[in-house]
Amino acid sequence: MNRFDAFRALHHAERPLFLPNAWDRASAAALAARGFPAIGTTSLGVAAAAGLPDATGATRETTLRLARDLVRLPVLVSVDIEGGFGSAPEDVAAFAADLERFGVAGVNIEDGRPGGAGLTDPALQSERIAAIKRSAPGLFVNARTDTYWLGTAEEDPRQETRRRAAAYLAAGADGIFVPGLVGEDAIAALAADVAAPLNVLLPPDGPGPLRLGELGVRRVSTGSLLFRAALHAAVETAGHAARGEPLPAGLPSYARAQSLSEAYAPPAGWDGSGPGTETRRPGRPG
Amino acid sequence: MNRFDAFRALHHAERPLFLPNAWDRASAAALAARGFPAIGTTSLGVAAAAGLPDATGATRETTLRLARDLVRLPVLVSVDIEGGFGSAPEDVAAFAADLERFGVAGVNIEDGRPGGAGLTDPALQSERIAAIKRSAPGLFVNARTDTYWLGTAEEDPRQETRRRAAAYLAAGADGIFVPGLVGEDAIAALAADVAAPLNVLLPPDGPGPLRLGELGVRRVSTGSLLFRAALHAAVETAGHAARGEPLPAGLPSYARAQSLSEAYAPPAGWDGSGPGTETRRPGRPG
Repeated sequence: MNRFDAFRALHHAERPLFLPNAWDRASAAALAARGFPAIGTTSLGVAAAAGLPDATGATRETTLRLARDLVRLPVLVSVDIEGGFGSAPEDVAAFAADLERFGVAGVNIEDGRPGGAGLTDPALQSERIAAIKRSAPGLFVNARTDTYWLGTAEEDPRQETRRRAAAYLAAGADGIFVPGLVGEDAIAALAADVAAPLNVLLPPDGPGPLRLGELGVRRVSTGSLLFRAALHAAVETAGHAARGEPLPAGLPSYARAQSLSEAYAPPAGWDGSGPGTETRRPGRPG
Repeated sequence: MNRFDAFRALHHAERPLFLPNAWDRASAAALAARGFPAIGTTSLGVAAAAGLPDATGATRETTLRLARDLVRLPVLVSVDIEGGFGSAPEDVAAFAADLERFGVAGVNIEDGRPGGAGLTDPALQSERIAAIKRSAPGLFVNARTDTYWLGTAEEDPRQETRRRAAAYLAAGADGIFVPGLVGEDAIAALAADVAAPLNVLLPPDGPGPLRLGELGVRRVSTGSLLFRAALHAAVETAGHAARGEPLPAGLPSYARAQSLSEAYAPPAGWDGSGPGTETRRPGRPG
């Protein structure tokens, strides 16, 4: 099974795909070691780790370098490419083609524009998606629409979301991602409307992955959650340490953390076209 | 007060300097925002975040790029340069001079060699330290000796540590760092032996910073602790999220995390020679 099929199949399993989002090689390696069969990236985390602003196209090179590192891990990798790191469909497609050549399994591309500029014209966004699918047919394209996330659809985000989802799927998208979509009724209604795997962010206080699956969601991602949890833990631990208070138990040892930075050789059976045997394991810590 | 004097003064304050170690721009920015007046870097974290091995000289460029990012934060920055990213004293000195020019306040340089090769010849290490002080006199040079860390001093690590500390100080080092040194008696004895600020790693179960100060320690650093805590939190949070369990409370919001990635303009009063007013605040969360 090639990467595309392996990744696509995870969207049609008994449970929805739980996709944790990494921001650097260490977080990705740790999540892979924990047994998640696929990982995404968080553009906020990638940007913040590098001292760059999120969702403004500033992290093109950083994202490319990270993708090249992550594909050496024994896990399927989906990369957040923000709005595509370019405006012209051919530029976006060229970037995606690089990712496919590296061995990336999928991308997220969003229609929210930076700086409060609202949503991209859906026809232009559809052209970008079509261009990606032409130049990188082996990438699972998860088309993100920010109708709910940006809160710009004035009256009826659901109608606008349906229209955009249909346009993006017609252009060749393989899945639809609607961050900011919360509430069981709204989620179930949209899942019924969208003729492809629906991806939502795990709601902070809302239903868990299993319940989301019952509502029709096929992929649940964590966005910047893990990055924010990591940052929080670092600062809190520093505070405890400075005050001489007990430190958290169960941390990975120096040797364990160092082992995550060892270069991964391509997995056994790797021929450059597939994800390698280790990524096919079905187990997830869910 | 210039950076060197400001950083040096933190080693002679009422309490020992608590120096938390960051590994990327976000962790450094979050620690600076928490009020720590100075931050170090952790070579393990820097290496693992980039998918490179620690303590082998592989992160020269990564460290340089990171240093350039970190000096834009309103905090004093000390950079771990492993063994110096070069063998010849003039190469090590050139690297250090770049850091000084960027605005770094100090460096750690270690005498442990990679791959189980034991300790560097102290005369050669002293030459490197002297070369750094000649080319970058504004850097606080914290000379790390791995006599305890590597466990290679066969009989009496204390004697070898004293000899090396004396040699490094004679070469111009401003402080001595002895990771792996634990036990109140051993710490107090070495603090009495060393004629410069002694730096130790915060022992996992040992005395806190205040008690270490009573024993004569002038600087307490966290090594890879915060990085390991962050990694642990990310993976644990992913596990909880995948199982639909409650998520940790009190995490920074998306907006808060994003604000950490905004470019820091040089602080008010910055003239390229000093740390800026904000770094002079005495408060520490300890």
